[in-house]
Amino acid sequence: MQPTHQPTDIHQRVLARDLASLPDGSPACIAGWVHRRRTLASVTFVVVRDRTGLTQVVVKDAETISRLSGIPEETTVEVTGTVSLNPAAPGGAELVEPTFTALTEPAVAPPVELWRPTFGAGLATHLDHAAVTLRHPRHRAAWEIASASLRGFRSALTALDFTEIATPKLVGGATESGANVFEVDYFGRPAYLAQSPQLYKQMLVGVFERVFEVGPVFRAEPHDTVRHLAQYTSLDAELGFIRDHRDVLVILRAALAGMVEAIESYAAEAASLLHVDLPRVPEEFPVIHFADALELVGADPAEPDLSPAHERALGEWALTTHGSDFLAVEGYPMAKRPFYTHPWAASSPMHPRQARLAEPGGDGFEGSNSFDLLFRGLELTTGGQRLHRPSDYRAALERAGQDPATLAGYLAAFEHGMPPHGGFAIGLERWVARLTGAKNVREVALFPRDLHRIMP
Amino acid sequence: MQPTHQPTDIHQRVLARDLASLPDGSPACIAGWVHRRRTLASVTFVVVRDRTGLTQVVVKDAETISRLSGIPEETTVEVTGTVSLNPAAPGGAELVEPTFTALTEPAVAPPVELWRPTFGAGLATHLDHAAVTLRHPRHRAAWEIASASLRGFRSALTALDFTEIATPKLVGGATESGANVFEVDYFGRPAYLAQSPQLYKQMLVGVFERVFEVGPVFRAEPHDTVRHLAQYTSLDAELGFIRDHRDVLVILRAALAGMVEAIESYAAEAASLLHVDLPRVPEEFPVIHFADALELVGADPAEPDLSPAHERALGEWALTTHGSDFLAVEGYPMAKRPFYTHPWAASSPMHPRQARLAEPGGDGFEGSNSFDLLFRGLELTTGGQRLHRPSDYRAALERAGQDPATLAGYLAAFEHGMPPHGGFAIGLERWVARLTGAKNVREVALFPRDLHRIMP
Repeated sequence: MQPTHQPTDIHQRVLARDLASLPDGSPACIAGWVHRRRTLASVTFVVVRDRTGLTQVVVKDAETISRLSGIPEETTVEVTGTVSLNPAAPGGAELVEPTFTALTEPAVAPPVELWRPTFGAGLATHLDHAAVTLRHPRHRAAWEIASASLRGFRSALTALDFTEIATPKLVGGATESGANVFEVDYFGRPAYLAQSPQLYKQMLVGVFERVFEVGPVFRAEPHDTVRHLAQYTSLDAELGFIRDHRDVLVILRAALAGMVEAIESYAAEAASLLHVDLPRVPEEFPVIHFADALELVGADPAEPDLSPAHERALGEWALTTHGSDFLAVEGYPMAKRPFYTHPWAASSPMHPRQARLAEPGGDGFEGSNSFDLLFRGLELTTGGQRLHRPSDYRAALERAGQDPATLAGYLAAFEHGMPPHGGFAIGLERWVARLTGAKNVREVALFPRDLHRIMP
Repeated sequence: MQPTHQPTDIHQRVLARDLASLPDGSPACIAGWVHRRRTLASVTFVVVRDRTGLTQVVVKDAETISRLSGIPEETTVEVTGTVSLNPAAPGGAELVEPTFTALTEPAVAPPVELWRPTFGAGLATHLDHAAVTLRHPRHRAAWEIASASLRGFRSALTALDFTEIATPKLVGGATESGANVFEVDYFGRPAYLAQSPQLYKQMLVGVFERVFEVGPVFRAEPHDTVRHLAQYTSLDAELGFIRDHRDVLVILRAALAGMVEAIESYAAEAASLLHVDLPRVPEEFPVIHFADALELVGADPAEPDLSPAHERALGEWALTTHGSDFLAVEGYPMAKRPFYTHPWAASSPMHPRQARLAEPGGDGFEGSNSFDLLFRGLELTTGGQRLHRPSDYRAALERAGQDPATLAGYLAAFEHGMPPHGGFAIGLERWVARLTGAKNVREVALFPRDLHRIMP
């Protein structure tokens, strides 16, 4: 069939969600993708998909039915017809006596039938054909949850006086860690893709006190894992004039509560489709000290980190003891934290474990004012208080064997006066994977990038 | 002086904006940066800056005055004292009988006195010391306008059913134009930094119909100009089921109106400080055809583009004739537009100039369904309708001499059914520079990147 070229007038089109609110028998024009054609003996059903849902179109006219063979699934169409209110139809209304106008050429069949409730292919097929397979309702739903989360993160933080920032993704020198960075040919000189906005968000606390950024970060992760991407979306926040890391936890709680609320408000259908059991975010996160956490799970008290099994056990403990899906573990050993981490502060109520350390001959690790937030027994995000005194930075860089000259622009912020401050970062794709139960973070990213994949 | 380590309790601190709402004589604790110290014969004034404004602290006690020499400008402090309501004080209240606690070591003097109303140094000094000089109220204000604009852009588009997306910044093959791309060492293979989310936002129209993205884009601009950056923040939108580019203009108008409203709501003080004359966004942008625009400014009708002088003349014409700061110029020659541009559609009311072209022997250019939006006589943004039929893409790539194989993932979206669609992109820094009258886009960016600058 020859597609006619009559682009839809957006002002006159009726969306799927609004069809049932029209009077029975009224004329209506819908537009979308042919989601499914189903031919029975005397009638053909054509389901049309738009951004708000599905509309069932009932075709009985023989000539129109024969024309449908030229409008395969995924072809975009405009359909004019008559509204028939019908409680048995999806959404309570269907379109009858239709006239179809294709808006493009007949679509090539997708690699997977997109109308089937489950996605009938593996991850590689999905990623190879993402431009089409992302249209599957389950993939679309995962991103709708991501998109709502971004909205909730921002609204929670702007309500708390945070200023949105946009920081350089091209950096000239040493970055946060130095390992796993992508090198860029920057007008003939080497530059690097930023692994996080960490240094810039701290500098901008000096300007705006409270800042957040939502943006891409880059890790040249050389391993093929189910939880790492070469590019992911980081939700970063940083704030000044805190007492210690506990104040950062207060803000993190507000951000996560905002994200959950936004999913409830703007992506409820998506969450329901993917059977997401949204967490209740408690008024205050339960907190356990790292040393107590080790003891609780029966680990060696000299362990510098928690294993995945330990984290799972702690998650169960938080649920049974505090009724919470979340648990903050504070006081992580400094040795496992980046150079800008603030040590366990003397002003904090001293933890028994830290007190023993402070005694003459005290062994074990030096604790930090940082935390991991576990969500259902898995690490969701890391945060904490940062150093803010210039002399502390000079000492920390010396300990780390790092040349202060490469960080001169960053260190200037501290020389010129910074408040006690801290922050956190949430990986968007990891958050959505946890919520939806996706085994691989690639399932919930749009066009993920990894060791092997740079296309499409 | 020895700074004591007593980080501020964020729960008890009073912000500058709230001080005058406390009862006269009540105790209060403020925190911020020492903005200025001013010593008179019998009294010293210390102005403390926080994220909400300035507080004047009145020091009469000789011992406290002598201690102030150890707390220079930009040192972060906590000040406890007594509220004194005083209509003569900035904000209507000041703090008297103060006790100062430094929150860090004495700050090194900034390269420029930040308390002076004008910034007393050139652009190079500002950019070299951005971590500190961004604290100057004028620089901070410019970014507050940027930040509010982002908020308005998103809220306008989410209200219109747009879904936020996050697309790859690392791309494997041919991008939109091919020139001026940064090359990345991607696990030993070449990859490139995305110059725009153009191809991805189109693919995602196939998924969500209406999408937007706010994110960094990268241009390896080899020239040193006042309007180009190697990284800038692009506000991108794209939507399906349009009639033609005029529908895109409707959305662009809504986005810009949202941005202006958000500046009024959230950055009014910043706009006032920088003497921003916010535009009134008309209900509908006036539109002129490219050929008529050439005629109006007396240019050669064979000109394929508008010069800056032409744009200025058109801006004046829009203001005097339509009372509008904005003017859309539609029907730009296809030759000056990228390969995905939709030609002037037969379905559009045919413009006389286009009609002459269609006549036998008609000369001149082939017009497009695209536009430039002029704001006060300067190009602010470009947009338009894109091709959506796969055969049109095959023909366009052949004309452009581009290998379709490098764009296979993108072309798949069209083979599998796409609606008529279009979109636009606004450069955030350019928008803010136009509003604030900044001569150089670097003045309004946080840590700009260019041919010479990759630090801080």
